[in-house]
Amino acid sequence: MEALPELANRFLMQFQSPTLAFLIGGIVIAALGSRLAISESIYKFIVFMLLLRVGLEGGMSIREANLAEMLLPALFAVVIGIGIVLLARVSLAMLPAVRTEDGIATGGLFGAVSGSTLAAAIVVMESEGLEYEQWAPALYPFMDIPALVMAIVLANLYLKREDGATDKVRIWPIVKESLQGSALSALLLGIALGLLTRPEPVFESFYDPLFRGLLSILMLIMGMEAYSRIQELRRVAHWFAVYAAVAPIMHGLIAFGFGYIAHVLTGFSPGGVVILAVIAGSSSDISGPPTLRAGIPRANPSAYVGASTSVGTPIAIAIGIPLYIALAEAVF
Amino acid sequence: MEALPELANRFLMQFQSPTLAFLIGGIVIAALGSRLAISESIYKFIVFMLLLRVGLEGGMSIREANLAEMLLPALFAVVIGIGIVLLARVSLAMLPAVRTEDGIATGGLFGAVSGSTLAAAIVVMESEGLEYEQWAPALYPFMDIPALVMAIVLANLYLKREDGATDKVRIWPIVKESLQGSALSALLLGIALGLLTRPEPVFESFYDPLFRGLLSILMLIMGMEAYSRIQELRRVAHWFAVYAAVAPIMHGLIAFGFGYIAHVLTGFSPGGVVILAVIAGSSSDISGPPTLRAGIPRANPSAYVGASTSVGTPIAIAIGIPLYIALAEAVF
Amino acid sequence: MEALPELANRFLMQFQSPTLAFLIGGIVIAALGSRLAISESIYKFIVFMLLLRVGLEGGMSIREANLAEMLLPALFAVVIGIGIVLLARVSLAMLPAVRTEDGIATGGLFGAVSGSTLAAAIVVMESEGLEYEQWAPALYPFMDIPALVMAIVLANLYLKREDGATDKVRIWPIVKESLQGSALSALLLGIALGLLTRPEPVFESFYDPLFRGLLSILMLIMGMEAYSRIQELRRVAHWFAVYAAVAPIMHGLIAFGFGYIAHVLTGFSPGGVVILAVIAGSSSDISGPPTLRAGIPRANPSAYVGASTSVGTPIAIAIGIPLYIALAEAVF
Repeated sequence: MEALPELANRFLMQFQSPTLAFLIGGIVIAALGSRLAISESIYKFIVFMLLLRVGLEGGMSIREANLAEMLLPALFAVVIGIGIVLLARVSLAMLPAVRTEDGIATGGLFGAVSGSTLAAAIVVMESEGLEYEQWAPALYPFMDIPALVMAIVLANLYLKREDGATDKVRIWPIVKESLQGSALSALLLGIALGLLTRPEPVFESFYDPLFRGLLSILMLIMGMEAYSRIQELRRVAHWFAVYAAVAPIMHGLIAFGFGYIAHVLTGFSPGGVVILAVIAGSSSDISGPPTLRAGIPRANPSAYVGASTSVGTPIAIAIGIPLYIALAEAVF
Repeated sequence: MEALPELANRFLMQFQSPTLAFLIGGIVIAALGSRLAISESIYKFIVFMLLLRVGLEGGMSIREANLAEMLLPALFAVVIGIGIVLLARVSLAMLPAVRTEDGIATGGLFGAVSGSTLAAAIVVMESEGLEYEQWAPALYPFMDIPALVMAIVLANLYLKREDGATDKVRIWPIVKESLQGSALSALLLGIALGLLTRPEPVFESFYDPLFRGLLSILMLIMGMEAYSRIQELRRVAHWFAVYAAVAPIMHGLIAFGFGYIAHVLTGFSPGGVVILAVIAGSSSDISGPPTLRAGIPRANPSAYVGASTSVGTPIAIAIGIPLYIALAEAVF
Repeated sequence: MEALPELANRFLMQFQSPTLAFLIGGIVIAALGSRLAISESIYKFIVFMLLLRVGLEGGMSIREANLAEMLLPALFAVVIGIGIVLLARVSLAMLPAVRTEDGIATGGLFGAVSGSTLAAAIVVMESEGLEYEQWAPALYPFMDIPALVMAIVLANLYLKREDGATDKVRIWPIVKESLQGSALSALLLGIALGLLTRPEPVFESFYDPLFRGLLSILMLIMGMEAYSRIQELRRVAHWFAVYAAVAPIMHGLIAFGFGYIAHVLTGFSPGGVVILAVIAGSSSDISGPPTLRAGIPRANPSAYVGASTSVGTPIAIAIGIPLYIALAEAVF
């Protein structure tokens, strides 16, 4: 059991990473009664910057990818991304005392993809000589974006029904409203600009370098907000911890199965199958939080960010990656 | 006619450049009913950052320049910059159904200078071995800034007369008010700081790197705004297209004439004459839009930015530069 | 007297440094009636960014330092930082017609430390082969932060007494309120994050590169504000000039004495003693102004920034550094 101390170590390291550190920092200063505040207009602008950047990157990587060859794996990525959210909708979100919108948002975050988990997997695979298609990492937006959109639509559908609750709620107006909201507008605008135009100069000189820093500020704001809502979580924190521990491996194995089908049908490489499993097993600590915060404002960020960053990501990296590689070596 | 496909190609490439791409992106998401919004305070701050940077660069390049030697060409640059705006005032701005402030703003943008057109010309000239004075590129703020100031003053003079229309409108208060407005204050402050102090450390670490990115956001905002005013342009778009096609070459040839006079009087080099023609023929897609947006808020950005970026700049580069170089080789 | 023209030269150069240039720029455009304005929300966000960065750097340098060995010098640094503010409280702040809060704020700035003065000293010491402990430069937050906190608490204590003036003012609530205010919250949050977590990625990619640029904007805002309060200073400017000329050398010599005690007791190196004297003699033009501006909003920035940047810093560099080095060579 050498893996256990390593897992514990990764777990502790997460608390020192800027993402979680700023979140906890925000919780602590709010608890200490700080009067620090960041204005709504700045907050919204930060979210806009983050989402535009996430969209631009997704759009550019789709543009660069070989669409014909990656068709089936990309389709599977979309299906998995949506499936993860639906799974959370009927499991975590249904648990007693778990607020439904928090469960859906958490599912959205676990359906979305972590770029750093993906990068870690690529480093391990390259050191083991496991080959994969050049375009395989570009599968990530195909899973990431549908999962986030799905979560926002599902949550708004649920909340609308809760609030109004007159008769049948029609889906299309809510989908349309979600897409026109500032979160998904900025994300989709970024995708369209990345796909159809050449935003590389501003992406590289502006949106990308500012990304991590702006994210740290967002985390701080989310932490301060989380503190004021922390009692909501008291009774249900264990459910989120269980979900965050189980879901990454389960999602990764499901994706491995889909990848195997693509291998049989179109010759998708073993390395590609591992990558599909890794991105399904990962949960977004970067693109997801701002999208969900703006798209489902009533969900509690300490639920979904806490579950993903403090439990989900260490497990996805320390257990998931070696597991899928071992599985690939056994199966193929 | 090899030049024609090249012109078409440059024309299409412009739509992929971040400047125009974000402008069109803003128009499209506004048309699709997006609720994305960027607050007024952020918008104003972005404009401030852009104008301060434009001013700083102008001031620093004047400081570095050899003022005695460049006196006559610099004077000519001022005259040409102002002349271009006056020309637009009595031509484009007088056309039936063209709103006067839109015509003046467009003239201001065509009087202002495009740094990228200038850079393109320098690359071509160096590959052809055409020599020019070291300080010749520093002529650009002498044309750029007077043109923008002139356009703002002329437009405010016109709008004041329209609004109040009592008796004689006195010019000086309007000039003073234009100079004290946030747009020209920031621009002139930047020039003064660039000229008299050493802002290089903050220019290089902050104002310059953020410039293109902030400009892309401004373009997005201007696009969203342009959509809500697009019907104003329906009947007159052809006038702007004609102006944008004819003006660059006409301005370039006029400047070539002035440059020739400077050549006869003070030995201004043939390469310098070409540079003067190029900066007169270029229209600003960078310094101009934020200045005019803040200085003439009632002018329609889709008129002046559209004319300049989508028609004026490709013609200034693809036709203008080779034309002036060929002319210089024929004349000198 | 070769030093005199050098001092005059350094003095003039300060007016061209971005810090002072933007401050003066702000004064000038306000005097000329500019309508340029930067919104309160942006201003507060800039201050937050600056203070978080100052705190992060302080926290990280404490984390990297050898705490056991540096215990006594660090304790002395705290004592000196607090002592300088108390000294200003009973000298400058008591002078006729000097507003007490301005005097305290100025003391806070002279107790705080200038990173660039420290860097200048290190360059000189290295060229002279004067050795010092690796951790000696990390003494700076131990002086900087206590001085700023002390100044804010003292000023708020004074102002509270002025305003309410009922009976005894209790100190603890004011200390607590100062610590919970947005200025010290951001500073202390930064220290905690720098000390306990690994914020290096966001520090290096975001907070640090933006620092000088954001500071230049803050200086501009402070200049515009200073103009509207400039008449307050008319009668007392000479007191600030005298203080700013005398205090750096006096503070440096006091610190040299403390350093000498540490040398005798724990073998603190001569180079370390010089560094302690230099940081005591320096006055902050970077971390101090935003902290004091937010922590003591009623103090007049043109008093403390003017005194520090235009008089204190040139003297601390041009006279202080060679003086302490010569003293170290004479004493040890």
